[in-house]
Amino acid sequence: MSLIVQKFGGSSVADAESIKRVAKRIVETRKAGNDVVVVVSAMGDTTDELLDLAHQVTPVPAPRELDMLLTSGERISMALLAMAIKGMGVEARSYTGSQAGMITDERHGSARITEVTPKRITEAVADGAIAIVAGFQGFNRATGDITTLGRGGSDTTAVALAAAMDADICEIYTDVDGVFTADPRVVPNARKIDRITSEEMVELAAVGAKVLYIRAVEFARRHNVPIHVRSSFSNHEGTIVSNQSGDPVEQPVVSGVATDLSEAKITVVGVPDVPGKAAEIFTIVAGTNASIDMIVQNVSAAATGLTDISFTLPKGDAAAVLAALGATQERVGFVALQHDDQIAKVSVVGAGMRTNAGVSARLFTALSEAGINIEMITTSEIRISVVTRADTAADAARAIHTAFGLDADVEAIVYGGTGR
Amino acid sequence: MSLIVQKFGGSSVADAESIKRVAKRIVETRKAGNDVVVVVSAMGDTTDELLDLAHQVTPVPAPRELDMLLTSGERISMALLAMAIKGMGVEARSYTGSQAGMITDERHGSARITEVTPKRITEAVADGAIAIVAGFQGFNRATGDITTLGRGGSDTTAVALAAAMDADICEIYTDVDGVFTADPRVVPNARKIDRITSEEMVELAAVGAKVLYIRAVEFARRHNVPIHVRSSFSNHEGTIVSNQSGDPVEQPVVSGVATDLSEAKITVVGVPDVPGKAAEIFTIVAGTNASIDMIVQNVSAAATGLTDISFTLPKGDAAAVLAALGATQERVGFVALQHDDQIAKVSVVGAGMRTNAGVSARLFTALSEAGINIEMITTSEIRISVVTRADTAADAARAIHTAFGLDADVEAIVYGGTGR
Repeated sequence: MSLIVQKFGGSSVADAESIKRVAKRIVETRKAGNDVVVVVSAMGDTTDELLDLAHQVTPVPAPRELDMLLTSGERISMALLAMAIKGMGVEARSYTGSQAGMITDERHGSARITEVTPKRITEAVADGAIAIVAGFQGFNRATGDITTLGRGGSDTTAVALAAAMDADICEIYTDVDGVFTADPRVVPNARKIDRITSEEMVELAAVGAKVLYIRAVEFARRHNVPIHVRSSFSNHEGTIVSNQSGDPVEQPVVSGVATDLSEAKITVVGVPDVPGKAAEIFTIVAGTNASIDMIVQNVSAAATGLTDISFTLPKGDAAAVLAALGATQERVGFVALQHDDQIAKVSVVGAGMRTNAGVSARLFTALSEAGINIEMITTSEIRISVVTRADTAADAARAIHTAFGLDADVEAIVYGGTGR
Repeated sequence: MSLIVQKFGGSSVADAESIKRVAKRIVETRKAGNDVVVVVSAMGDTTDELLDLAHQVTPVPAPRELDMLLTSGERISMALLAMAIKGMGVEARSYTGSQAGMITDERHGSARITEVTPKRITEAVADGAIAIVAGFQGFNRATGDITTLGRGGSDTTAVALAAAMDADICEIYTDVDGVFTADPRVVPNARKIDRITSEEMVELAAVGAKVLYIRAVEFARRHNVPIHVRSSFSNHEGTIVSNQSGDPVEQPVVSGVATDLSEAKITVVGVPDVPGKAAEIFTIVAGTNASIDMIVQNVSAAATGLTDISFTLPKGDAAAVLAALGATQERVGFVALQHDDQIAKVSVVGAGMRTNAGVSARLFTALSEAGINIEMITTSEIRISVVTRADTAADAARAIHTAFGLDADVEAIVYGGTGR
């Protein structure tokens, strides 16, 4: 008998019909002879609607109260799911994050799991019941208060529970068939990946593949939890994400291509090329809490003694950074600020890069042959990312996808959502 | 400095604007130098909407899961209210029933409070914060599960907290100005009552005055908690309900008249007048869990040795009782069943009845002069109820109201709701 943790996102439980469909699926897993623990997100747009209400009431809602408010969302979906399963004659009980022993630090809105003590969940499973656990939420022991885990929190809850209970597999149900070699809406020949290493998945998630949240994958990698990403709309096998890479002979050089249009680029033009200027600039930037991604500093022009520093960051963070830098222009001594929100980041990820020379050469050749200009480059051990114009991103992804032999024979079927 | 417990019902917090209005009122009470604990119900129709969802998912929702579901309603309203107050610069914190120490038995859907341990609420108040507590919900220690208190649960939460914290007053905010001598929609000359004893209020609530739930009033009477029923739409003084009756010289014979159209009458015709038949009939009725109110047995007709037994019960319970009795007609040996859902119960309540002879005479005279026929009569120490035709109920209430000198000089202003 296997212990399976199944996680269903908000789009899988958007209304009463979907909840009944998901309940049926859970019951089938149970009847196939497995112990089942389910983690569920809030229904459909509930979280956004609650956030709206909060902002109608006060411009800056208190974080403790916002967490109290938002956690009502999973309370609704988990209770409905449990009663739907019980209605099908199978024992099921729902548990809040606190009842399930998801202990966190006290950072409201972005709490970190510090401990998982799933005593009641283990007991429920031992009783033969299906345990339905609220995703996204936890409990801080010091304050006695309810917390939330932030974006992708339900994935993290599922993986953390699977780790604590030593589950055989953590199934993440979504509205796509698994992890693809590229976003099928951008690259029609994208292929579903059958197996991928956690390490590669972390990199893919980091560069914009939205099917899994990086935090959950990172947790799974550290705790050696195998994940099965699969569709809640079909019974197809999805993608297995695990620390075992499978047969190394079979392993492709590149596992996938990701496209990210969410970043903007800021260039600080004409920075005096003296020690400490970059530190000064990024101290100012850090003061705005912006998340900086790529950084490039040009070689200084000998004639002027000035250099340019460019960096990318989420589009939403740009205004604050521009304001902060603008206010210190005189002190730092740069010439001008440029803001560009028409960029795309295209990345290739593959554990095979480590043992394969010439990956970047093949990448740059493919882009050059497609007539696409590269503006910035960063690399990690198993990833290469380039910044291009936003309107060439799809062409770039397709060219790279073909160049690395990822194309499928048939076009992928594209579903509606983005797989939260 | 006084400690005031304020309870706001669902209609007082129906949307973001109402929540801000209530927040302002709470802040004013705090700024006037009082310690404030607030009990709040779910917003507007939230509870009904959640019940709808549950029934869409399964015909008979599991009670434990239904409680988990419904308690999300107060979680939303209390968090929004707390953040609204904090947005006005006053410290506020929301607490679930379990965090507030509302310990109950394990009867899901109609749990009874067994203990109140409001440690965190006391601490919050000592810190100078306003504590916002979820009404209607509690926690069972043996199972570790969330419970709900059933209808009128939020009133009960407020009174129980006020008792446990030894509050100076428990203010119940509603959409009418207080308790009236009759329903102003039925008796336009109804007067707001300034003071009423808990004992009278229990009787009035029992016979259909909807402004306070009987369970909460009964709790307040037993624990000597004074209640102030007042409008959340005005600053008028409302009605004080307390165990002190005020100046006895001033006390009217009758405090109020209540009309109740929610009951039906069932008559078991031609019951053999032998010992044990009534017991047999009411054992069958009890098996359906119907709540029986009034019972009348006619004097047996000597010629036939048969008698009739009539009783009233909530309209919704009648079908099940008729079916149960019908199935046993042969065994019990009665002649026929009659069902009448066009009845009204009109009641007068007053602690002054104890020391005033002739109250029933005055009541029956008033009805007779108004041409209204009485079908059944029951009395308690401080109440007389009569059953009349439904279409004469309003006339009956007005006639009685006038006969006991309750009429005001001006007509009462009628607001929208029924004062949940």
